[in-house]
Amino acid sequence: METLVGEALIQHNLERFLLVLSVSLSVATLPQIFSWARQIPYTLLLVIVGAALALVDVRLVNLSPALILSIFLPPLLFEAAWNLKWSNLRKDLFPISLYAIFGVVISVLGIAFGLSRFTDLPIAIALLVGASLSATDPVSVIALFRDLGVGDRPKTLLEGESLFNDGVAVVAFGLLVGIPLGLQTFELRTTIVDFCVVVGVGVGVGSLIGFGISYLTQRFDLPLVEQSLTLVSAYGTYLITEELGGSGVIGVVTVGLILGNFGSRIGMNPRTRVIVSEFWDFLAFFVNSIVFLLIGDQIQFASLFSHLDLIGVTIAAMLVTRALTIYGLGFLANVTAKTGIKIQEQTALWWGGLRGSVSIALALSVPIALEGRDEIIATVFGVVLFTLMVQGLTMKPVLAALHLLGDQPLKQDYDEMIARRVALQRVLDRLRQIDPRPDVEEDYYLYQEALLSGQIKDVDEKLETLRRENPLLRDYARDQLRSELLAIEADTYAEFVKTGQLNRELAPFLPDVFPSSDR
Amino acid sequence: METLVGEALIQHNLERFLLVLSVSLSVATLPQIFSWARQIPYTLLLVIVGAALALVDVRLVNLSPALILSIFLPPLLFEAAWNLKWSNLRKDLFPISLYAIFGVVISVLGIAFGLSRFTDLPIAIALLVGASLSATDPVSVIALFRDLGVGDRPKTLLEGESLFNDGVAVVAFGLLVGIPLGLQTFELRTTIVDFCVVVGVGVGVGSLIGFGISYLTQRFDLPLVEQSLTLVSAYGTYLITEELGGSGVIGVVTVGLILGNFGSRIGMNPRTRVIVSEFWDFLAFFVNSIVFLLIGDQIQFASLFSHLDLIGVTIAAMLVTRALTIYGLGFLANVTAKTGIKIQEQTALWWGGLRGSVSIALALSVPIALEGRDEIIATVFGVVLFTLMVQGLTMKPVLAALHLLGDQPLKQDYDEMIARRVALQRVLDRLRQIDPRPDVEEDYYLYQEALLSGQIKDVDEKLETLRRENPLLRDYARDQLRSELLAIEADTYAEFVKTGQLNRELAPFLPDVFPSSDR
Repeated sequence: METLVGEALIQHNLERFLLVLSVSLSVATLPQIFSWARQIPYTLLLVIVGAALALVDVRLVNLSPALILSIFLPPLLFEAAWNLKWSNLRKDLFPISLYAIFGVVISVLGIAFGLSRFTDLPIAIALLVGASLSATDPVSVIALFRDLGVGDRPKTLLEGESLFNDGVAVVAFGLLVGIPLGLQTFELRTTIVDFCVVVGVGVGVGSLIGFGISYLTQRFDLPLVEQSLTLVSAYGTYLITEELGGSGVIGVVTVGLILGNFGSRIGMNPRTRVIVSEFWDFLAFFVNSIVFLLIGDQIQFASLFSHLDLIGVTIAAMLVTRALTIYGLGFLANVTAKTGIKIQEQTALWWGGLRGSVSIALALSVPIALEGRDEIIATVFGVVLFTLMVQGLTMKPVLAALHLLGDQPLKQDYDEMIARRVALQRVLDRLRQIDPRPDVEEDYYLYQEALLSGQIKDVDEKLETLRRENPLLRDYARDQLRSELLAIEADTYAEFVKTGQLNRELAPFLPDVFPSSDR
Repeated sequence: METLVGEALIQHNLERFLLVLSVSLSVATLPQIFSWARQIPYTLLLVIVGAALALVDVRLVNLSPALILSIFLPPLLFEAAWNLKWSNLRKDLFPISLYAIFGVVISVLGIAFGLSRFTDLPIAIALLVGASLSATDPVSVIALFRDLGVGDRPKTLLEGESLFNDGVAVVAFGLLVGIPLGLQTFELRTTIVDFCVVVGVGVGVGSLIGFGISYLTQRFDLPLVEQSLTLVSAYGTYLITEELGGSGVIGVVTVGLILGNFGSRIGMNPRTRVIVSEFWDFLAFFVNSIVFLLIGDQIQFASLFSHLDLIGVTIAAMLVTRALTIYGLGFLANVTAKTGIKIQEQTALWWGGLRGSVSIALALSVPIALEGRDEIIATVFGVVLFTLMVQGLTMKPVLAALHLLGDQPLKQDYDEMIARRVALQRVLDRLRQIDPRPDVEEDYYLYQEALLSGQIKDVDEKLETLRRENPLLRDYARDQLRSELLAIEADTYAEFVKTGQLNRELAPFLPDVFPSSDR
């Protein structure tokens, strides 16, 4: 009997998740069919479709906070941290930390103040709402920033802030959730000590595992093992940190930053680094596909409508506190920093402070015994939806109004041309290289050569035109070159491995084609 | 309260699996430290370590049959089917089908006969042992075949047989398990009809989903979505087929074959195809890392030792029935086929018929109510261990004795040289290409050019020596060229996408550099 129950449970859950995924993947193809859908970021499309399903009361999966925090969150945090360049982060570590720590404090206090002043919500409950909503989740606008060519800086600031304040918010929530239940009273000094301990343990464990795995992977070259180790590191760090009473979120962010910037350089060959990055891109896409659809699907419209007052006040408080955080703390940061954060960029940061899965998870994790739980959940859902639908969907016009959109279309045309040019040249070179070899036939390749030479001439003319009309492309080209040369090396070996001409284990043993000083 | 239990359960299971993975990954690095470990296939090392843990009674995770069949098996089957070339499979479809279907029948009847004749095991129980052990799992020797340069044909025969007989074995087991429980009596005609229905539903659903997804992915070019779709297809096909009363195993094998050979060609661009293949390589490695360690870890040594008579008889029966299958049916196949299967290759197939996770899963899924369950489990475990440890570990010397080892080391040296040569030349060409461009500095590159030219001259000399000493390398080189040229195209775009020079979405829109007639 036990076996049957176990089997049915596993199959049932598997079916549910496959159903969710199928819906998400269908949504992902919508932009190919409807042009209006191309304007909307994928994650926001998922929320809309999920909400539509919720409207007709089709509930796919019950979103438990344990699921979000233990299963979905670690890979999302790890992938974001893995891809965050330390060189960029380091430049703005001060404003990011300011935003993350004091931003959370301002948010918790500000929202709690607003709610307790303008509604009859008890202060202890209001504080929990504030804590839940102090974690930002800008994944939807990060994608927009990238596609629209917004500079690296606002992107790094938003991503860094999000990663850091996720941890701070979860810790703050944990410290505050005991109060309304009467489990603890609020004492500033112990709270600050607790906070430091929890954060410290997170950073400590994350660093230990991060550097440990980094040096470990240096000792061998087994791509599949190294890829698995990143996955084990992400979840393992989360669990171990939580076990030790620290912040799992901060642990995962730390280990992700270290492995992404350090471990992947010293411990992995270029080919492995790329495969692992692609793997995490996929995992993040996969998890987001599930999470954002479910966020929409879990909406209780009746509950939302009966708490519109709470939601409205909280939205106002949230926008005000975020403005205080970004502009106020930003001013402070500018005073100390070399290059100030422009007011337009600050505004983009203000409006880009979306909320998402962490806020939902925290709200859902409020103990059922607590009176006010429904209010917390309804309010947080309402505010999250506002940020996603209103702020998220208006982000593009706001960016345009702030003149932050880059010259992305031009760069893309140039990239296309260059890629074509290099590909054609490379094939031509290979063909020519083959001629003197007695190993293979020649006639077929003479035809190809003529064809390719003509195509190359074509592209060269188009490139010259582009360059003449846009002198700034020359700087752009110079930067591109360096990355190009490094990638050639890695990809040559990769190509041979892929076509089976080179045993996977041999590729990393081939000597570097560049002297090490060049790196 | 419910939330806490859910959370604790999720975390507990997560911890267990991370522990298992950590052990497996450590085992994977053993060959780097101990040279004796390099002779043993990874999966067999895992079983040895798992058994060592079982000896000291360290049980990591309880292996439930539902877990193996619903979660672990689909990805393993899909990956094997995805990588199985239809062109190779088609050539030997007749012997493979013979081996799979009649091989299972011979195995079930032979083992049951042996057990009921030489031990006092009831026939109904003996039949279940036979059914469990009729599924082969040669993953450990396939890896060996590849590394030692054994020809494509034995590899395809073994892999194809394994994929097909997994399905047949599961179906046979399902048909037989009702008998000892008194749920049904054995009637040949209804059994054959049931069998055909179950297999037919499996092939039908697998084909529907396989071709459906293939044509679907043709309509758009979203690599992450297509990657996710393969994952959804694998699990979805398994679940839907089982729901409809068909064989989930056969469904997954079918969909994997179709997507791997057809869907990936018509629906995915070369770059996506490679990423998806790498993803499935990883997933298979990941799952095997868990499964084989657990197979070793679940061993109940006491139970094994108290049923040595059953195990011994079954091993003998298994070896005899496999010999009958391979040599007997092989003779039949040779009569009809163009090129016969050589007797040495047949012997490799005989000794390479290892058993693994499917047999274990079937044995564990015997209802607890059934008397004889312990005997079934002990016997199956014992035989599986014999095949893995004795047959698996002696495979390499057996292959050497059969003169089936390829000239792999020579080819590897040649591959290394060629890869190096192409990489150096490619970088040199790129550098030279840059000179006329007014975009970038020149001085640095003149130095590089000289360095590279010297290195290229070096490699050319070594290549000439190799060619002079081994004339057969010329044919080898000709075959390599075609794959090379195709890979150059795909990788150029990939490289540009990776270095951020080309937006991922643009790459597939770039026109093919080869005229389509060339493909």
